[in-house]
Amino acid sequence: MVADIKACIFDVFGSVVDWRSSLIKDLSAFGASKNISGVDWTEFSVAWRKMYQPAMEEVRSGRRPFTQLDTLHRESLYVLLGRFGIKGLTGADIEHMNKVWHRLDPWPDSVQGLTLLKTKYIIAPCSNGNVALIVNMAKRAGLPWDCILGAEATRAYKPTPRAYLGSCELLNLMPHEVLMCAAHNGDLKAAKAQGLCTAMWPRPTEHGPGQTTDLAADPAVVDIAATDIVDLARKLGC
Amino acid sequence: MVADIKACIFDVFGSVVDWRSSLIKDLSAFGASKNISGVDWTEFSVAWRKMYQPAMEEVRSGRRPFTQLDTLHRESLYVLLGRFGIKGLTGADIEHMNKVWHRLDPWPDSVQGLTLLKTKYIIAPCSNGNVALIVNMAKRAGLPWDCILGAEATRAYKPTPRAYLGSCELLNLMPHEVLMCAAHNGDLKAAKAQGLCTAMWPRPTEHGPGQTTDLAADPAVVDIAATDIVDLARKLGC
Repeated sequence: MVADIKACIFDVFGSVVDWRSSLIKDLSAFGASKNISGVDWTEFSVAWRKMYQPAMEEVRSGRRPFTQLDTLHRESLYVLLGRFGIKGLTGADIEHMNKVWHRLDPWPDSVQGLTLLKTKYIIAPCSNGNVALIVNMAKRAGLPWDCILGAEATRAYKPTPRAYLGSCELLNLMPHEVLMCAAHNGDLKAAKAQGLCTAMWPRPTEHGPGQTTDLAADPAVVDIAATDIVDLARKLGC
Repeated sequence: MVADIKACIFDVFGSVVDWRSSLIKDLSAFGASKNISGVDWTEFSVAWRKMYQPAMEEVRSGRRPFTQLDTLHRESLYVLLGRFGIKGLTGADIEHMNKVWHRLDPWPDSVQGLTLLKTKYIIAPCSNGNVALIVNMAKRAGLPWDCILGAEATRAYKPTPRAYLGSCELLNLMPHEVLMCAAHNGDLKAAKAQGLCTAMWPRPTEHGPGQTTDLAADPAVVDIAATDIVDLARKLGC
C-alpha cells in the first residue's frame, strides 16, 4: 500500500504551522505598536480560531457559496474587534491583522520533513486555507510545496469529501496513491473514508497547555503513525 | 509600475520548456524501443502540437465543458496513431506516449532564471497544461514554482480573459501587480488587455529552424523585453 503512494498532501493549520503561538505573538506585537491596552491576545486568538468551523459550516451546508478563508477570517475579525472593544484601526491595520494567518510559523520539524519528503513524493497542502494565504505563508516560512491543493482548488471545505477527492483528481492520482497527512484524527478519518492513505503525528501543544485532543494517532483511521514530519519522511524511506 | 509587481506568472510550453526538441527526442527513443519503423517523429511531434489549439478551441467556444489538457492530448494522440499507421501498442504504451508532455526539458536559462525570480516574487505557471502535467514536469525538470495557476485552476484556456484574471484572483492580487511572462506576443497581448504587466523573451528555435514568428518583443504589448529568463530576473533586480 505504502508502495503505491505518489503524493503526500497535508493539513496545515496546527499540523505544519503553529497557529496559536504565532497569532498570540504577532497580535501582541501589533497591539503594542498601536497602543491597544486591556486586550488578552491569547483569548482573542483562541476566540478567532473558534469562529473558524462555524464560518466554514455555512459553506459546507450549502447555505453560502464557496468563499475564501481570508474573507471568512475578515468577517470573524470584525465581530471580534467589536466584542473586544478595539477601536480606531484603519482599513490597512485590519487587513494587516487579517493577514496574520499568512504569517504563521512552522513547527521546528516542518521545513526539514517536507524537504525530505519532496525528494521522493509530490508534496502539497490540502488545507482549508485559500491559495494566496498558503502561498504567502510558504514563501515566508520556507515550506517547499510542489503545488497548492485543498479547499479553494476544489471549492469545498474539509471534511467535505470533495476536498480530498478533488485534490487527488488535480494530481490525476487514485485516492490510494495519495497520503493524507495531519495532526488531527478527524481530518484523517474523513480522508480515509474516501480511500486515501493516512499519516498522523501529534502536536500536543497546538491548543496550548492542557490539550486533551489528538494526543495520539487513532489506530482505526491512521495507517502510518509518526512522531513528527521528519519521522514520517524517514518512515517513508526519504 | 514594475514596483507594484508581486507575482510573475509564466507561459510554459515554448517559453520555459522546449516542447519540440523534447518530443522528438523522447518519441524517437520510444519508437526505437518498440521497433516502430517508418515514422518521422519530427513530423509526428509537429502534427501533435498542431492539434493543440483546435482542441482547446472546443472548450473556449463553449461547445465542450472544461477538459484537462492531458485528455485533449490523448484524443489527438489516438488520431495520430491511426494517421501514422502505428499499431500494436498497449494502453500503458499510449499512456507513456501521452505523458511525454510531462517530460519536457527546460531551456538552459529557465531553472536559474526562475530560481532568481523566486527570491523576490511569487512565481507560478499560467499555462494551458493541467496541474498534474505541470507538477510532474516541474518535479523532473527542477522548476521551482510556488503554486500552479492557469487553465485548470481557472477552468479556462488562454487566451480567454478568465485564465489571466482568475490566476490573479487566486493570488488575491490586482492585475497590475502581476507580470505575465512569455515568449509569445499573442499570449501577452491577451494578458495586457486584462490589465496585467507583460514581459517577453524570444525562443527563436521553439518551432525549429526557419522560425518566423515571435522573434522579438512587440513593443505595443510588451512592458519588459528580455533576452531570456535570467536576463528578466536581472532586469527585475533579482
